[in-house]
Amino acid sequence: MTDTADKSGRATTPNGTAEVRAAVEAYWAAAGARDWDAFAATLADDVVYDLPQSRERIRGKERYLRFNQEYPGDWRVRIEQLVADGEGRQAAARTLVTAGTERMQAIHFFTVDAEVRIATVTDFWPEAYEPPAGREHLVERY
Amino acid sequence: MTDTADKSGRATTPNGTAEVRAAVEAYWAAAGARDWDAFAATLADDVVYDLPQSRERIRGKERYLRFNQEYPGDWRVRIEQLVADGEGRQAAARTLVTAGTERMQAIHFFTVDAEVRIATVTDFWPEAYEPPAGREHLVERY
Repeated sequence: MTDTADKSGRATTPNGTAEVRAAVEAYWAAAGARDWDAFAATLADDVVYDLPQSRERIRGKERYLRFNQEYPGDWRVRIEQLVADGEGRQAAARTLVTAGTERMQAIHFFTVDAEVRIATVTDFWPEAYEPPAGREHLVERY
Repeated sequence: MTDTADKSGRATTPNGTAEVRAAVEAYWAAAGARDWDAFAATLADDVVYDLPQSRERIRGKERYLRFNQEYPGDWRVRIEQLVADGEGRQAAARTLVTAGTERMQAIHFFTVDAEVRIATVTDFWPEAYEPPAGREHLVERY
């Protein structure tokens, strides 16, 4: 997957950003297709999944696969923005997740290992809220 | 700020990631220091600030400066993770914002213009929630 690597096995291709981007795109494509073999292939064996809002953590590919396989609902996901950082071996994404008539925005941070497998996933599910008073003179609503 | 540029003025330096990273770091350093001249210098004139959770939008450097200057509370901000994408001229950050005893996680997406000034800022403020039932066999809490 990489053109060259240094002695530590760390990829040194200048195109690391494209690789990280491709890894995250493959992760979402496989999840959306429920192609669990392809999904597993994007993950490091010791992947760690974090949900900071509920302080939940899942460790390891096997458990994380089960979590995704068992996730309820006929959800669909669309990537809205994908920020890929080859130098930092990390990425962030905004997605729109739909399930029936429900629409949720989600945010995902990723790090990848030397083989560009996903090593950590940190998900956020921000909810809608009403704007606080006092800034109406500056904002418009949409 | 860039070594070379193509005919459109778009920077073609291979070090775009470092530039984007530096722009976001300068933005937070200036905001944290309430150095509004330095903060303004990081922004495009037509910067657009979006809060998708409350569907609020602020257009233009002048209004966005006022929004930040008028923001209540003696808040402090620390960057927890910064994902910088030089090819995509965009970034994402996780920050910890504290105000007295209150601690909030925030998430920020940025795009930058050809001069590596911040053109869009999209903020999310995810709130804590209780985990749904049914996945206790896979997760640990922290």
